Amino acid sequence: MDAAAREAQAGLEWRVTVPEGASVTVEHEAGAVFRAWACLIAAMVTARSKVSGFAKRVWRIGADDPRKAAHGFKVGLALVLVSVFYYTRPLYDGVGGAAMWAIMTVVVVFEYTVGGSVYKCFNRAVATASAGVLALGVHWVADKSGELEPFILSGSLFLLAAAATFSRFIPTVKARFDYGVTIFILTYSLVAVSGYRVDELAALAQQRLSTIAIGIFMCLGVCVLICPVWSGQELHRLTVSNMKKLAGAIEGCVDVYFAEPATPAQAKSDGYKCVLNSKASEDAQANLARWEPAHGKFGFRHPYSHYAKIGAAMRGCAYCVEALNSCVVAEAQAPEHVKQLLREVCARVGAQCARVLREASRSVETMTSSRTLDFAVADMNTAVHELQGDMRSLPSMLAVKLSETSLMDMMPLFTVASLLVEISTRIEGVVDAVETLATLAEFKEASEDDDDKKRETTEMTKVHPLNEPDAEDASPENQAAKA
Amino acid sequence: MDAAAREAQAGLEWRVTVPEGASVTVEHEAGAVFRAWACLIAAMVTARSKVSGFAKRVWRIGADDPRKAAHGFKVGLALVLVSVFYYTRPLYDGVGGAAMWAIMTVVVVFEYTVGGSVYKCFNRAVATASAGVLALGVHWVADKSGELEPFILSGSLFLLAAAATFSRFIPTVKARFDYGVTIFILTYSLVAVSGYRVDELAALAQQRLSTIAIGIFMCLGVCVLICPVWSGQELHRLTVSNMKKLAGAIEGCVDVYFAEPATPAQAKSDGYKCVLNSKASEDAQANLARWEPAHGKFGFRHPYSHYAKIGAAMRGCAYCVEALNSCVVAEAQAPEHVKQLLREVCARVGAQCARVLREASRSVETMTSSRTLDFAVADMNTAVHELQGDMRSLPSMLAVKLSETSLMDMMPLFTVASLLVEISTRIEGVVDAVETLATLAEFKEASEDDDDKKRETTEMTKVHPLNEPDAEDASPENQAAKA
Repeated sequence: MDAAAREAQAGLEWRVTVPEGASVTVEHEAGAVFRAWACLIAAMVTARSKVSGFAKRVWRIGADDPRKAAHGFKVGLALVLVSVFYYTRPLYDGVGGAAMWAIMTVVVVFEYTVGGSVYKCFNRAVATASAGVLALGVHWVADKSGELEPFILSGSLFLLAAAATFSRFIPTVKARFDYGVTIFILTYSLVAVSGYRVDELAALAQQRLSTIAIGIFMCLGVCVLICPVWSGQELHRLTVSNMKKLAGAIEGCVDVYFAEPATPAQAKSDGYKCVLNSKASEDAQANLARWEPAHGKFGFRHPYSHYAKIGAAMRGCAYCVEALNSCVVAEAQAPEHVKQLLREVCARVGAQCARVLREASRSVETMTSSRTLDFAVADMNTAVHELQGDMRSLPSMLAVKLSETSLMDMMPLFTVASLLVEISTRIEGVVDAVETLATLAEFKEASEDDDDKKRETTEMTKVHPLNEPDAEDASPENQAAKA
Repeated sequence: MDAAAREAQAGLEWRVTVPEGASVTVEHEAGAVFRAWACLIAAMVTARSKVSGFAKRVWRIGADDPRKAAHGFKVGLALVLVSVFYYTRPLYDGVGGAAMWAIMTVVVVFEYTVGGSVYKCFNRAVATASAGVLALGVHWVADKSGELEPFILSGSLFLLAAAATFSRFIPTVKARFDYGVTIFILTYSLVAVSGYRVDELAALAQQRLSTIAIGIFMCLGVCVLICPVWSGQELHRLTVSNMKKLAGAIEGCVDVYFAEPATPAQAKSDGYKCVLNSKASEDAQANLARWEPAHGKFGFRHPYSHYAKIGAAMRGCAYCVEALNSCVVAEAQAPEHVKQLLREVCARVGAQCARVLREASRSVETMTSSRTLDFAVADMNTAVHELQGDMRSLPSMLAVKLSETSLMDMMPLFTVASLLVEISTRIEGVVDAVETLATLAEFKEASEDDDDKKRETTEMTKVHPLNEPDAEDASPENQAAKA
């Protein structure tokens, strides 16, 4: 094959019969154009697949929880309502006027949950009012002091801003009044540096407060009346779904450990990871839930802060499940015939642990104090005692039956069994926390019939996708890496 | 003793010789006054002790980390600078004018860390500019369309606000542009509902942008030039201090387990709790650190996101330490004479594990790739092999020496030993993550001399209090309950 034929076959370059230099140039140009074209197409294909992948992920966010899409429309609606309200009123006079403060209030204050919106509304109203009054007072004093006026105003601004900013590091202030501190500093500085006289200022402050009030009422109205999302309910659901996931994880781990070697992936047993990582969202929801009025089954003083204790107990349990899971996937395993000896009793303990957690989650979910919970705990303890008995008699059983098994082979199995015992102890901690919640929140006593009926219902219904708000947190350890 | 004497002794009531009814009234009144007085004094004492307790706690926040107090003064300074700047300029014309936007920018944008401030400044500037341009375009179109104007404006406001609000649920947008989305909606709605004509609006937008720019420059200037707090450094310190705490916790657990029964409290071994609970702050700092320019040893593209992986590896280790700790405090313990058999080798494993973690933390702290780290890992593995060998030979040793010991007694000890083996495996995961960081961040090679010197320095210097920003997180499981 000669050079020309080879080139023709490659089809990448054109040869023109002109002097050497020119030919080379054309080749390069043609090659460059072709390469640029190829790059462009490749980039477009990549971009298209990226865009469609991104679009799918965004669509999934909205499809998994339609309330998130609804939230977007609620914000749009509240803004349009406020702007229409001001279109039709004479006090509207452009961006600098009163309309601005109403719109600003809606944009800044409207949050996903009712608790979040109430928290911001309350903080904004109280901080604006208190800073306004304080600034008016200081302004009045500065007015009377003549030459010292700029120094008094600047000095007070400096000191108040410094003190208020520092106060945000106090945990209680941070948790409840963080936004209010910002608004306090903002309002105080705006009034303090303004060139208005005190009587003008008073009229201005009154007008501003009324405008902010309109914004707050519109915002709260839309937030509460159209598909409200309650922080308290979210916290409640998160706790219930985490408890179910933990139950599934314990069962899953035990199943996988004692199953034949070629078991499928352990999707179910990964549920404990959600429990490990939900502390931040639990704390945030509990923080916002305290601002919410009574709604549905949740009274005015529902003990939201106690959910954190249930969460802590569940995390204590999840740490052990994590250790159990690492035993399940470890390389060093007890021989199959040794495992078989404890298989049945371990499976029973796992199933009883899961049953207790499911009973507890049902009690929280339905807000009734379960009669069967205590029986389930007793059954679990019986199973644990059996397991401990079997562990005690195992060496002698093995010595009689299978003299070739060394003690070292049994170690991994013993570790698994000890972890199961520890998990059952920690589940009792979860049950204690749930029972305290039942007392604090005055759960109703369930009748025997109800109990049976509800058990059937609970077993029949699947977990609703809305009950798993942090499904995307399943492997959050990797999220930061992805981002 | 007669009634009068008894009353005199009690000293609580006065008897006046008047008719029955009156006497009773005086007695009641005197009792009520006395009780009210007692209540008042009690309340004042309680209030005083509460206030002084609160004041002490607040003082401690500032004393533990003076940078927090400095932050307050920095905010005050920036505000005074901006207000003084505007006092001296003719364009100042009251609250509605340009000064307002500069002040608002400073108040809202000034954050504790440089990364936080840059994040907000960037978001504010880009969102204001893009929303302004978009709104001007829509305004122009609406202007031309005659009667349809209010519908075009309201419709676009509704759609854009809904879409922008929904976009906040996308994790990437939430992490990097959350604040920008708020400002985008705010600016767009302010411009869209304004009654100005387009040419007026353009002038207004230009003035506003320049004012915001002044606010941003003042804010960034004060934030970076006066005692800057870098998110990247905070993340780095948090990782280093967590690694040291984990090392201390492993040593502490082993020490307490094998010590004589009457050991003091386990303050040292509680360090792992900080590691368990620092995920949220690690993620937040890594998120902000990406906005920071190069500073000190941290280059422009320092792999901050990789710290999350080190954190995840450390948490994996901390879960096991938690399980180990529960074995330490458990009621069921192996008999002392059985413990003694593994005491030395377990202590060695614990010490070697701690040594590896300390070497790794030193490598991260000094940003040099440690030569001795690999040796430390090898030593740890040797110790682990010894432990496994001893575990294997333990039953025969016991059978020879102490025939009265049942196998069941040994179980708790075996669980502890297995957990130590698992911990050493997970520490290798931490070391791998640290070595990947060393490659990504191009840690310098330490010379042999440096190594020796630095080891001495590290051993001599105590951990600076600033290195433990989350010391108050030590038992965060209880915080929600306290709040």
